[in-house]
Amino acid sequence: MTERERIPRSKDNDYSTDWATQRREFIERHCGTKLDHVSRYSIDPQLLPGNIENFIGVAQVPLGIAGPLRINGEYASGDFLIPMATTEGTLVASYSRGMRAISECGGVKTTVVEQFMQRAPAFVFTDAREAREFGAWVENHFAEIKAAAESTTRIGKLTHIQQWSVARTRYLRFNYTTGDAAGQNMVSKATYAACLWIKSAYKGSYRYQLSGNMDTDKKHSHMNMLHTRGTRVIAETVFPRETLQRLMGVDTRQLWEARNISNTGAMLAGAAYNGPHSANGIAALFIATGQDEANVVESHGGLVVSELLGNGDYYFSITLPSLIVGTFGGGTALPTQRECLEMLGCNGKDKAKKFAEIVAATVLAGDISLACAVLAGDWVSSHEKMGRNR
Amino acid sequence: MTERERIPRSKDNDYSTDWATQRREFIERHCGTKLDHVSRYSIDPQLLPGNIENFIGVAQVPLGIAGPLRINGEYASGDFLIPMATTEGTLVASYSRGMRAISECGGVKTTVVEQFMQRAPAFVFTDAREAREFGAWVENHFAEIKAAAESTTRIGKLTHIQQWSVARTRYLRFNYTTGDAAGQNMVSKATYAACLWIKSAYKGSYRYQLSGNMDTDKKHSHMNMLHTRGTRVIAETVFPRETLQRLMGVDTRQLWEARNISNTGAMLAGAAYNGPHSANGIAALFIATGQDEANVVESHGGLVVSELLGNGDYYFSITLPSLIVGTFGGGTALPTQRECLEMLGCNGKDKAKKFAEIVAATVLAGDISLACAVLAGDWVSSHEKMGRNR
Amino acid sequence: MTERERIPRSKDNDYSTDWATQRREFIERHCGTKLDHVSRYSIDPQLLPGNIENFIGVAQVPLGIAGPLRINGEYASGDFLIPMATTEGTLVASYSRGMRAISECGGVKTTVVEQFMQRAPAFVFTDAREAREFGAWVENHFAEIKAAAESTTRIGKLTHIQQWSVARTRYLRFNYTTGDAAGQNMVSKATYAACLWIKSAYKGSYRYQLSGNMDTDKKHSHMNMLHTRGTRVIAETVFPRETLQRLMGVDTRQLWEARNISNTGAMLAGAAYNGPHSANGIAALFIATGQDEANVVESHGGLVVSELLGNGDYYFSITLPSLIVGTFGGGTALPTQRECLEMLGCNGKDKAKKFAEIVAATVLAGDISLACAVLAGDWVSSHEKMGRNR
Amino acid sequence: MTERERIPRSKDNDYSTDWATQRREFIERHCGTKLDHVSRYSIDPQLLPGNIENFIGVAQVPLGIAGPLRINGEYASGDFLIPMATTEGTLVASYSRGMRAISECGGVKTTVVEQFMQRAPAFVFTDAREAREFGAWVENHFAEIKAAAESTTRIGKLTHIQQWSVARTRYLRFNYTTGDAAGQNMVSKATYAACLWIKSAYKGSYRYQLSGNMDTDKKHSHMNMLHTRGTRVIAETVFPRETLQRLMGVDTRQLWEARNISNTGAMLAGAAYNGPHSANGIAALFIATGQDEANVVESHGGLVVSELLGNGDYYFSITLPSLIVGTFGGGTALPTQRECLEMLGCNGKDKAKKFAEIVAATVLAGDISLACAVLAGDWVSSHEKMGRNR
Repeated sequence: MTERERIPRSKDNDYSTDWATQRREFIERHCGTKLDHVSRYSIDPQLLPGNIENFIGVAQVPLGIAGPLRINGEYASGDFLIPMATTEGTLVASYSRGMRAISECGGVKTTVVEQFMQRAPAFVFTDAREAREFGAWVENHFAEIKAAAESTTRIGKLTHIQQWSVARTRYLRFNYTTGDAAGQNMVSKATYAACLWIKSAYKGSYRYQLSGNMDTDKKHSHMNMLHTRGTRVIAETVFPRETLQRLMGVDTRQLWEARNISNTGAMLAGAAYNGPHSANGIAALFIATGQDEANVVESHGGLVVSELLGNGDYYFSITLPSLIVGTFGGGTALPTQRECLEMLGCNGKDKAKKFAEIVAATVLAGDISLACAVLAGDWVSSHEKMGRNR
Repeated sequence: MTERERIPRSKDNDYSTDWATQRREFIERHCGTKLDHVSRYSIDPQLLPGNIENFIGVAQVPLGIAGPLRINGEYASGDFLIPMATTEGTLVASYSRGMRAISECGGVKTTVVEQFMQRAPAFVFTDAREAREFGAWVENHFAEIKAAAESTTRIGKLTHIQQWSVARTRYLRFNYTTGDAAGQNMVSKATYAACLWIKSAYKGSYRYQLSGNMDTDKKHSHMNMLHTRGTRVIAETVFPRETLQRLMGVDTRQLWEARNISNTGAMLAGAAYNGPHSANGIAALFIATGQDEANVVESHGGLVVSELLGNGDYYFSITLPSLIVGTFGGGTALPTQRECLEMLGCNGKDKAKKFAEIVAATVLAGDISLACAVLAGDWVSSHEKMGRNR
Repeated sequence: MTERERIPRSKDNDYSTDWATQRREFIERHCGTKLDHVSRYSIDPQLLPGNIENFIGVAQVPLGIAGPLRINGEYASGDFLIPMATTEGTLVASYSRGMRAISECGGVKTTVVEQFMQRAPAFVFTDAREAREFGAWVENHFAEIKAAAESTTRIGKLTHIQQWSVARTRYLRFNYTTGDAAGQNMVSKATYAACLWIKSAYKGSYRYQLSGNMDTDKKHSHMNMLHTRGTRVIAETVFPRETLQRLMGVDTRQLWEARNISNTGAMLAGAAYNGPHSANGIAALFIATGQDEANVVESHGGLVVSELLGNGDYYFSITLPSLIVGTFGGGTALPTQRECLEMLGCNGKDKAKKFAEIVAATVLAGDISLACAVLAGDWVSSHEKMGRNR
Repeated sequence: MTERERIPRSKDNDYSTDWATQRREFIERHCGTKLDHVSRYSIDPQLLPGNIENFIGVAQVPLGIAGPLRINGEYASGDFLIPMATTEGTLVASYSRGMRAISECGGVKTTVVEQFMQRAPAFVFTDAREAREFGAWVENHFAEIKAAAESTTRIGKLTHIQQWSVARTRYLRFNYTTGDAAGQNMVSKATYAACLWIKSAYKGSYRYQLSGNMDTDKKHSHMNMLHTRGTRVIAETVFPRETLQRLMGVDTRQLWEARNISNTGAMLAGAAYNGPHSANGIAALFIATGQDEANVVESHGGLVVSELLGNGDYYFSITLPSLIVGTFGGGTALPTQRECLEMLGCNGKDKAKKFAEIVAATVLAGDISLACAVLAGDWVSSHEKMGRNR
């Protein structure tokens, strides 16, 4: 490929089947491959500005359906069929099995604790004392900063600014509520406006950058575990001893002993999550519903807390402190993604918390199922049966 | 939905358009929604056993093309067009911009350091001394354990077993090479066989579980940073000062100063990655090529190392210690996914390292691009232009 | 030793030379050893209630003097002689060397950012929703909780309560200012009183424990890095290139390159501190001045931030987010400890911040010295000369 | 103080009472303070080369005695009286209480798993590929490297070298056994010799530094949790339900429930230790016995693992993966320190593992005691009675 041979692009009408075709032909020519399936989509390319550039077609990710899952949430209430997009055999089956156990036990209780989205600029001064003074000034000018930030958005509200001093840098972390949107772009724009106002109002010799990495956008972090990025949501179920014995073939005491070993293993390994596999359910739901797939990395962090009750029943819970979801914006309006959101009754406004509850309930289902499978020895055999041998 | 109303399933012929249709109708009936786009797929359902259960159709994820990206790897060499599946506007454009800068600078050098996949069983004894003795026994019986493990696979090879003692548990971590497969199922099966052999050969009172969480499957962990899960791969480029100034509008000294602030921020935040956004490029490539999406959580961890050279040029590198990829098994054989792999010349055998190099090179492109955008102030404005306002 | 043979103890007059002698004789009899030096102390045992039980004598820890160290702090200003109690050869000499370099460069600038001490009770409810409701109640009853807490202390002030929900537990973290005392006992007592008030005022079925480990008392934690436990203090110096070349025999560019390698190493290793050896200076000053030695573990965490300036000079700083010191209470009133505090002009009231600045300045001195020594190859040879071969 | 006024020092005979006196007078003159107690020591200054520079006297740290503590170790066996140097009231009493409970339950079982000490140089190359090649070379030349390292010491043995590639740096981590010495200086010297040999034998353009921070000397790190720095030692006791009820006034189920809350708190806080206060016992024993006080930071990290057994008894254990102790070298030969080691039968050769077992047993005693005190509400009241109000 020579320097001159650039990917074909139209300035006027790039989001068209024609230009998608031209680009596929360009690829076929250069790579010597055929793109017969990538081209089979039902999306109108005119929908795609804001979602993709250099559009060539679609990845078709298989969708399976798990459930019904009974959720007793404050926003999600009832029996849900859960769409999961994945290529990992056994996954849908295993989550379904967990959902059945949950539903037999009366459902999973879900609780949204709080919701925030951040952008975290850093201001660098001549020395630590100037940085500290700036921090005090920011605290005293919160109202003006808030006004500047919120001038850029009808939905986003700046709730508070966290601050850290390291060396001569003052790290700020702007916290917003963002309605039904995940909100990363919304808060970037708002914080940028706030920084411009700060720059104009606070005199002196300093520089700033719009992110000093304390937002830890698109990465797991201990920060996110402590300070909710996205939605902090909790799912809980008490499994009667008899039910798990009958449906899963495991004894609750064994299950709980195994959990203790896994908790210690997770601490020793320094793991972002001490449960079995939050990431699987989250990723599958995210692809299905048009969430930002990269946010799986933040979202999968969390804590499993369980307890063997005095009567032998098993309290099992998952806490996701940093589940980043939206039911508006991003990929949520695309055709297949919208259909999956609709299946959950989560399309559009005032649905983000409901969707967060559904994700948390799904994670709990997958975790109880896998925990039992590992113990009962089903794990390997079911992958043997249902999964490709990878 | 009543208890009796279960998702329709065929015992004989579940992977058929007919049963997919029945399930969609079941959903439409119960959820009161229409599934007009989910049903538009070109995949033959007969291909799907091993990838999905309760198949209902596909999620259509928009595919864009970035590049060309010049890679000087040991496996990937030349100019590549990178397929990215995403719904996040600006992403393809931004990665493309980084690729252009890289290509102008002569390309990105990629190096695969090593490749392993793990399964980590835990053995629980009466006291710590018994656990320690068992550990010594395992060391002395590596050959037999290896034979037992490898009896289950033609491809997987057990290379070494790591061990940790905590309380009365001995945590083992079996390390395998797995050829071109990501290999999680392969190593589960092999380790299960090894555990069965151990159980038969090592007498005494103890229990074991196939995972004690020291494999940290499907989660980020400090373990993975230290002890390669998947592929440890490094990408490096030296950007001449002039090039970044011209193409990106930033000065290398500023860029490097901003990096220092971000490095400190990442340390303070306890972030899994100190660079801008490895997860974006990885997730987009993973969906496009049929990788396990949940593995983005392990794969996104890593370290950016940069240096402002004496002449003002900028050495920039990313190290991904735990990039989990395969070019065989999983979703790699599905039609659109296979086409994307073919586009990269990465379909099939002996291609996993090549693909790992391409992912690493892509991550570097995205990171240099975003780092410059944040600094130059393009970040917010380009999302304004290209992204939906989320 | 039989069950009956207990350590001799007087109910009336246990803090006396006589009972100390009786206990030493008891030890000598049982252990067959001589305690000729342990018994050589100048402390009046009557001073010791509140510091020790079963008093038998003293450990004599060698004291050396380092400095002078020029500090340009807001509380500590001028040239200081630093008492260090240690048995590690080279340590005093190496810190002295760093102090000399600092003093030649005009001194170290120190900045106290903030000061807090915590106690973190946990409240466990029936489910996550109840825990969340309780959290809201706490927020709304801050004034009453504050009154209850502060009823136990004239000095401690409850500034704010942080909250975290995990499963059905609400973790609170009470933050106090504690004047010149380190304050752990003060805040325990105050928080205990607050919990008693909460228990009486907030009805329902729940239990609580006075610590849920979110205070991370006597352990390093990421929490402490983010949320100041003790004093957050920063020390900074700009070292002219010429000075380090002449005094230390190192080039600033080399020094900075080595720092980058060490920063990356610290991130990869998951280290609590990315600099050379904060713990050495802190421990030596803590023993000398009667600080709680166990608090070295919290205090040593922190961040080194450095920059090679355009002119080749070297900005070097250390940030200690969790330095736990007091100049009142604890061991600070004991004779040798008080003398060492007096040497620093830090005895008694309104001196805690001054002392924190001195500790931070000392840490910076030790870090620049060791960093240079490692590079110049002096490290091994000086330990060879000055240290015992351990 | 003027530049010229340096701390008095003798080139010939600095370790003398005379020069110590001159320095104290210098301090008294400059600081306007009296040093009446610091000067009261029974140590012969001639003993101090290798332990201190600029000697002026001693810090007298109160010593208390706890126990007897019944230990069923492989090296430590029998009833021990534990010397603790501290200024924190309640500490000795609380540890004693735990020791009594342990002794009533038949003692604490201790197990040393392994012992290593590290130095971790870093080698920086032109690119990642060269770094990887060097790594392979190191593996192939282990014998020569070992010979070079061991040429410097009769005691230290190089057992293995760990390796990590990040960017273009190859981090090595040399692991040694060091006999009864903690061994930091021994391994520095040996690794320095090894590096000199490598530098002579491996040609090419690269630089190295003797530490790249992967040894994490004098800091807590996740590395140390995983890869034993010092001694990995485990202590375990099964407490009958009745005993804890009678002696401590707590029910084992409550104790275990509280532990679960604390485990989760520790995970959420990112704590180096999930138990109550390992650092207290370690620091007190370290000061008493001449260990390097700064090593408390590495040593305090670890894991508490407990289990409520089916019969209501309570299995309680602590695992210290990075306990750095020596019974030879450092401060161990100083008079009071040697007396304390003798009290434990740990003076001199072949005693390091015994001493490690004693430390671990002590930590367990302190942890069970504090855990019960917090629960029973004794914590605040006993500090009230026995501690100064800090």
